[in-house]
Amino acid sequence: MDLTSISSPSFLKSLDNEQLKELSEDIRSFLIENLAVTGGHIGPNLGVVELTIALHKSFNSPEDKFLWDVGHQAYVHKILTGRASQFDTLRQFKGLCGFPKRIESEHDVWEAGHSSTSLSAAMGMAKARDIQNKKNYVVPIIGDGALTGGMALEALNHIGHEKTDMTVILNDNEMSIAPNVGALHNVLGRLRTHGTYNKAKDELESLLKKIPAVGGKLAVTAERVKDSLKYLLVSGAFFEELGFTYLGPIDGHDFVALEENLQYAKKMKGPVILHVITKKGKGYKPAELDKIGTWHGTGPYKMETGDFVKSTSKGPSWSALVAETARKLARTDKRIVAITPAMPVGSKLEGFASEFPNRMFDVGIAEQHATTMAAGMAADGMKPMLVIYSTFLQRAYDQILHDICRQNLNVVIGIDRSGLVGADGETHQGVFDISFLRHMPNMVIMMPKDENEGQHMVKTAFDYSDGPIALRYPRGNGLGVPMDEELKTIPIGSWEVLKEGTQAAILTFGTTIPMAMKAAEVLSKNNISVEVINARFIKPLDGEMLRDLQARNIPIVTLEESVLQGGFGSAVIEFYNEHNLQADVHRMGIPDIFIEHGEVNQLLEEIHITSDEIVKVVTSKVNESTRYISS
Amino acid sequence: MDLTSISSPSFLKSLDNEQLKELSEDIRSFLIENLAVTGGHIGPNLGVVELTIALHKSFNSPEDKFLWDVGHQAYVHKILTGRASQFDTLRQFKGLCGFPKRIESEHDVWEAGHSSTSLSAAMGMAKARDIQNKKNYVVPIIGDGALTGGMALEALNHIGHEKTDMTVILNDNEMSIAPNVGALHNVLGRLRTHGTYNKAKDELESLLKKIPAVGGKLAVTAERVKDSLKYLLVSGAFFEELGFTYLGPIDGHDFVALEENLQYAKKMKGPVILHVITKKGKGYKPAELDKIGTWHGTGPYKMETGDFVKSTSKGPSWSALVAETARKLARTDKRIVAITPAMPVGSKLEGFASEFPNRMFDVGIAEQHATTMAAGMAADGMKPMLVIYSTFLQRAYDQILHDICRQNLNVVIGIDRSGLVGADGETHQGVFDISFLRHMPNMVIMMPKDENEGQHMVKTAFDYSDGPIALRYPRGNGLGVPMDEELKTIPIGSWEVLKEGTQAAILTFGTTIPMAMKAAEVLSKNNISVEVINARFIKPLDGEMLRDLQARNIPIVTLEESVLQGGFGSAVIEFYNEHNLQADVHRMGIPDIFIEHGEVNQLLEEIHITSDEIVKVVTSKVNESTRYISS
Repeated sequence: MDLTSISSPSFLKSLDNEQLKELSEDIRSFLIENLAVTGGHIGPNLGVVELTIALHKSFNSPEDKFLWDVGHQAYVHKILTGRASQFDTLRQFKGLCGFPKRIESEHDVWEAGHSSTSLSAAMGMAKARDIQNKKNYVVPIIGDGALTGGMALEALNHIGHEKTDMTVILNDNEMSIAPNVGALHNVLGRLRTHGTYNKAKDELESLLKKIPAVGGKLAVTAERVKDSLKYLLVSGAFFEELGFTYLGPIDGHDFVALEENLQYAKKMKGPVILHVITKKGKGYKPAELDKIGTWHGTGPYKMETGDFVKSTSKGPSWSALVAETARKLARTDKRIVAITPAMPVGSKLEGFASEFPNRMFDVGIAEQHATTMAAGMAADGMKPMLVIYSTFLQRAYDQILHDICRQNLNVVIGIDRSGLVGADGETHQGVFDISFLRHMPNMVIMMPKDENEGQHMVKTAFDYSDGPIALRYPRGNGLGVPMDEELKTIPIGSWEVLKEGTQAAILTFGTTIPMAMKAAEVLSKNNISVEVINARFIKPLDGEMLRDLQARNIPIVTLEESVLQGGFGSAVIEFYNEHNLQADVHRMGIPDIFIEHGEVNQLLEEIHITSDEIVKVVTSKVNESTRYISS
Repeated sequence: MDLTSISSPSFLKSLDNEQLKELSEDIRSFLIENLAVTGGHIGPNLGVVELTIALHKSFNSPEDKFLWDVGHQAYVHKILTGRASQFDTLRQFKGLCGFPKRIESEHDVWEAGHSSTSLSAAMGMAKARDIQNKKNYVVPIIGDGALTGGMALEALNHIGHEKTDMTVILNDNEMSIAPNVGALHNVLGRLRTHGTYNKAKDELESLLKKIPAVGGKLAVTAERVKDSLKYLLVSGAFFEELGFTYLGPIDGHDFVALEENLQYAKKMKGPVILHVITKKGKGYKPAELDKIGTWHGTGPYKMETGDFVKSTSKGPSWSALVAETARKLARTDKRIVAITPAMPVGSKLEGFASEFPNRMFDVGIAEQHATTMAAGMAADGMKPMLVIYSTFLQRAYDQILHDICRQNLNVVIGIDRSGLVGADGETHQGVFDISFLRHMPNMVIMMPKDENEGQHMVKTAFDYSDGPIALRYPRGNGLGVPMDEELKTIPIGSWEVLKEGTQAAILTFGTTIPMAMKAAEVLSKNNISVEVINARFIKPLDGEMLRDLQARNIPIVTLEESVLQGGFGSAVIEFYNEHNLQADVHRMGIPDIFIEHGEVNQLLEEIHITSDEIVKVVTSKVNESTRYISS
């Protein structure tokens, strides 16, 4: 059928199984075709085609509320709720968001991007429903990977305790972003591989009834046997212990099983967990064969072959640079270990893991645990590197503050994907870390200008032994600069003059340096001489250089791909304020709004972070100060 | 014995049971007597006297590592490691810390104050041990309440998966700070009440051996029956499922049982969880009889009667003021609900709970879940108030940012204990919330000058419907000001002139207002006229007033009981910087260090936040500007 003709999911109610199957094939083809052009989370969405159709057929959205955990698997939901025609704009500037978005549709009742929030939100919505005497269903859909996140477990515990009506869909897709970690996964694994539980349960139950009671004690025990059959048979103990009714596991691509179980779940009181087994990437061979997560989220690809459209970047990936440099250093320093919360592939730690299998820890989606585990290792003399995306580091704010900084432990934090990340949009932008780390005592924060300085900063981080040190690096690839053979240590808090100038200075770091250099060139042609400084340490600042600039009495422009409130520019004006020095500082950075999805360049232009803007600001500042001097 | 003569726990090795009992009595008397004077966490420490002695007898600290979760129950540990003589200085300025402190003793290998970190840290130390080929034991001691915290569950999952050698002591004290919440607690409850498991298990095991196998299917099942006996008998499924060997429950006041089980646990491979039942407050009647947590942590008390030494403050407790005002408003606004993570008593929500039992949620120690649950409720039209201590709000940084602020949901955050908290010290100071909330788009932050304004701010918060709003209030009691009958709404972002003046202005809010008023009085006597402004909105600022002050060209002093980096003063200089306005601003606040324990006044003096200092700063600023004008 023509998917763009869908305006509401209500048409599903009248479809029979054959029609549902046809629809699912149409959706699959649509996804494979469209995402080949736009890129996107193809694997997860191909896995939930039947599940999403069955959910929309069995429930009535938006009265009934679907909460898509993590949110990247809501493409089918978007198609079924009237957004197919916008898929050519998916994840593009001003286009369809890759995650649920409340302003896009009344069917998107909850937004996510970070994992493990759906159960808590569902608990809130279920309680809101009960208090308001409404009758709607609340249906969080959560993957097995997200279930290891602490807050999901907090929520399971609370929901089970309160016996709140709710239908939790456990979408067990055999592989979350990385092969799942943890004992919890083993439980799911056992559930998955024992399809015969129900039958065996019946047999054993009748058998046990024949056991004679031997004295009072066993009579009690016998009753517990009956109670506990569910544990010993499906080993669903985990969920049942927590107070849930456990259903499944069922085939998440089988419409009959899905509808039957969803209808059954709807009738039950209290919290139900329906365990659905799905296959990521189903229906598209290259994605189905993926074992490590390459097809979790992709850029554009050739539909026929599954070949990815090659990136044109020259330098190494930043993730690989940091991981491989750490690996090199780990050969001579046995105290170096690496910790990742479920991102071994994204953070390019495979090489480190294969060379040092006992010194690399993928702890699953568990940022809090990862961070405090790093602190624990540092407290016993190790040099852990916690590699984590900027946006997910937000999950471990208190662990960095209370456990690492307060105890002043030597943890290296590799902040991957810092700055704007582009297509994933506002849930994933790494633009807060400077503002939330900068006020933590003992913290050092740095960001390199290119991959050569990047490798030296990895060494600098491991050489540093006075407390925690964070190394920010962006999403994507380096610039393709020549790499030094020998690694060296950069003095903590030292900045570097990249281009000398006499009439103004630009202080910036990382990804915005090329933009500043370009602006300086243009300004130079306009006969304005501007200094460009690589402010590679965001904390501590280079006080000497700041004093020198102030003494020279030239306007200063700070530039950061990071929020202005409490950011680097604020650190600079705090410095001058603290030392009672007058300086003419103009701060450029991200204003006090959330930045949506789009190409990084488009986003930067939207918020006026461009070399043109720098030229404008510097020119105006220089003219101002010239007027001032000449007046 | 004379406890002050203890220099190391090694003397315990040679003591027999009678001597251990005597020692435990001596320690109890010592604690009851000393804490009557200093105050402290009496309940938790009286509960772990025998457990701590047994741990130090069975293991060799500091080679073997004790990690005290939450940390407030380490007093006995401090006594046994040579610190009894310092107990008269407990929790006092420059005195013995109420929590483990690495600089105090080599036996304090891990510091805490926030809950649920010990298992992650223990995992780090256990892995550090294994990598370094050391042989020491790692022994986290965690309460049943702390176990509901998400990161503890993340850690259990990972430890179970890796089968790492570790002896976890589950100190199940029947009541953590508040009666425990959650399904997890039910599991512990069942374990606690079935002392006969081991015997029943043997009986059933032999019985089941006699069941004939009926066909292949049951043969498999029978094997599972055996595997699963542990589940169905002790219902210890939860821990066993996660990969732990479960021992217990045992009586935590019985030296024989403790030693036997600890020795047994030491011999086992992989992670062991020893479930110990203790009684909070044991040995001191008033504390033993406590059902709601009054004796968890106390100020000084009369030893003979257990009467608390009365506070001399005049006003209502801040917590009560906020909770009771919300309760009043909830009578007419049915959308109002309250959520607390395990602090119903501390946050004085008992009245709200008894009047609105269905609209008050104690979710246990689970700050992340509490916060996102509030977001979920707001997303479905409710007006939730999340009441949380400032220091614990740090745990929910990402949930506030990603779930509440990004979706711009109407959640009221009541930030209790904001500012310095005193005796609990550096793990509990509420001095970061302004800096970590201020850079979140959509957030409003306010703090009242007194309890009358406080009640109006509660109404303001619930009337506000444009997104999240945070109301900070300090630990302790209000000033005793007259209270308005009728509640009113304060315009968002509006400041208030408390005292007019012409030569300088002090901008401050909350607890530091009286200090500023006092300074203004002194200055007035010195013929310096200073304006004092109640900057009750920290975000958004009162731009009009800021512009007016700048136009008047007088020096401005900002004053906050909060960290300077990214704080309120920074917001003020950011404002002037953004609008390209020159103003002479001097920022007073907490420098970039962690602030230890002591009386708030002592701490403030130590960091130069006093009215004398304000007088000094203003005088110097006024003289400067006079010089400037006259030159």
